[in-house]
Amino acid sequence: MSRIVYVNGEFLAEADAKISVFDRGFLFADGVYEVSSVLRGKLIDNAGHIVRLHRSLAELEMAAPASDAAILAAQEALIQQNNVEEGLVYLQVTRGVADRDFAYPAADTPSTLVMFTQHKTLIDSPQAKQGIKIASIPDIRWKRRDIKTVGLLAPSMGKMQAKKAGADDAWMVEEGYVTEGTSNNAYIITQDNVLVTRHVGPEILNGITRRAVLRLAELTELRIEERSFTMEEAYAAKEAFVTSATTFVWPVIELDGQAVGDGQPGVFATKLRELYIEEALAA
Amino acid sequence: MSRIVYVNGEFLAEADAKISVFDRGFLFADGVYEVSSVLRGKLIDNAGHIVRLHRSLAELEMAAPASDAAILAAQEALIQQNNVEEGLVYLQVTRGVADRDFAYPAADTPSTLVMFTQHKTLIDSPQAKQGIKIASIPDIRWKRRDIKTVGLLAPSMGKMQAKKAGADDAWMVEEGYVTEGTSNNAYIITQDNVLVTRHVGPEILNGITRRAVLRLAELTELRIEERSFTMEEAYAAKEAFVTSATTFVWPVIELDGQAVGDGQPGVFATKLRELYIEEALAA
Repeated sequence: MSRIVYVNGEFLAEADAKISVFDRGFLFADGVYEVSSVLRGKLIDNAGHIVRLHRSLAELEMAAPASDAAILAAQEALIQQNNVEEGLVYLQVTRGVADRDFAYPAADTPSTLVMFTQHKTLIDSPQAKQGIKIASIPDIRWKRRDIKTVGLLAPSMGKMQAKKAGADDAWMVEEGYVTEGTSNNAYIITQDNVLVTRHVGPEILNGITRRAVLRLAELTELRIEERSFTMEEAYAAKEAFVTSATTFVWPVIELDGQAVGDGQPGVFATKLRELYIEEALAA
Repeated sequence: MSRIVYVNGEFLAEADAKISVFDRGFLFADGVYEVSSVLRGKLIDNAGHIVRLHRSLAELEMAAPASDAAILAAQEALIQQNNVEEGLVYLQVTRGVADRDFAYPAADTPSTLVMFTQHKTLIDSPQAKQGIKIASIPDIRWKRRDIKTVGLLAPSMGKMQAKKAGADDAWMVEEGYVTEGTSNNAYIITQDNVLVTRHVGPEILNGITRRAVLRLAELTELRIEERSFTMEEAYAAKEAFVTSATTFVWPVIELDGQAVGDGQPGVFATKLRELYIEEALAA
């Protein structure tokens, strides 16, 4: 690896991209993040991610690390310096460096801002063409999933649990209803063409790509219902898929070992993916 | 601050104690920790903390960062180099450095080991003499609180919520029952001298000091019940207190603005604290 990484105003070689062991992101998971995808060297839906970043910061009474203009300039500089044609920019803000104490440090403690890039095939991804397999698991996360914090151990464990079950990813189930995927929102399309996805609230992340895809779904013959659904309803669905900033739309072809529909990527999922990419490239 | 800090085998000046921004402790809260107290320059109950560390590591399929002997040697070296007469040694293990991915990195990825000390007045702490005030708040944490991970944002928020309510700390309530404090176990003593504290399970941390204090309570006239209790039962209690590695036993004198007993540190809490310190100093 030989990336250039951004740390608190400096562009550093990857090996020098370090933070204090006293950073509250390291000691308390006291930080939030955003991931913006990059297509043809351009940030996709980035303004929405920055709006959500501010919401996460506000919920945690955490100061913004820099102006929006400065953040955007750093994101774009990283894309250029790392020659990212297709991939992502990751951005993390923490409450900064302070001696370890559960209580927050003084409000004027400078927050930490870290950004880095990843090269990734997004448009021609194999998962988009072949679809992915999902295993359902209990949702053991905390109760404020609307805040995009770096407290990601539970979804990370969930991803591993899914892989052990022979699946690619997991959908998390709470009190009988699907919340979301480990790092994406979850959707089904019923036999009578109703697109169902969980309503927003503290139980799920309010996906930036989710919002775009629901908007694009209105261009199709799908009727949209934002509500809870069960795995049983999902097993009987015509189609299923997930969305996130870097997957866009990935069809789901298997749920807990059972084929979804005919076991092939669905027509609507494929169409929504096309519409999203088309719009992203035209922007 | 001018501490010497341990990072992956090196003893570094605090300003140089850094980890990669790609450390999974920073990006995913994919790490666990332990805190051992120090009295008269000696580690207290440290063997118990190391046993629990191994349990946390095993639950997360994370490799031990070093042998127990090497960990102990580093802890003792830090105490000496930082002249810690009274205070603590903090120890954190993470799954190490890898490019960001929810899936765990290769199993042979070296884990990260960080340790640092804090000077702290433990025996003559004002809170032990005066007692502390507790506010009850909803428990919004994840469901595996038996694993001592660094995903501590919820308890950190809880501590701040308590302070805003004019209290010193919070007890967290789930489905009508107290789980524990933000960084300690919670106890009440009923009017008929029954010591009640939550039974161990995934809902709480299995406190090392908790175990010692329950053992010492058998030397008193208290009867012990490990079971859930409500705040209503707590309001009616004769005494209340908390335990942790660095507080030992702190009496609770107020719960949600209501005095516990006569509003003074309780006789049993004070006695249990004395017994604990006596045993610790004699060890």
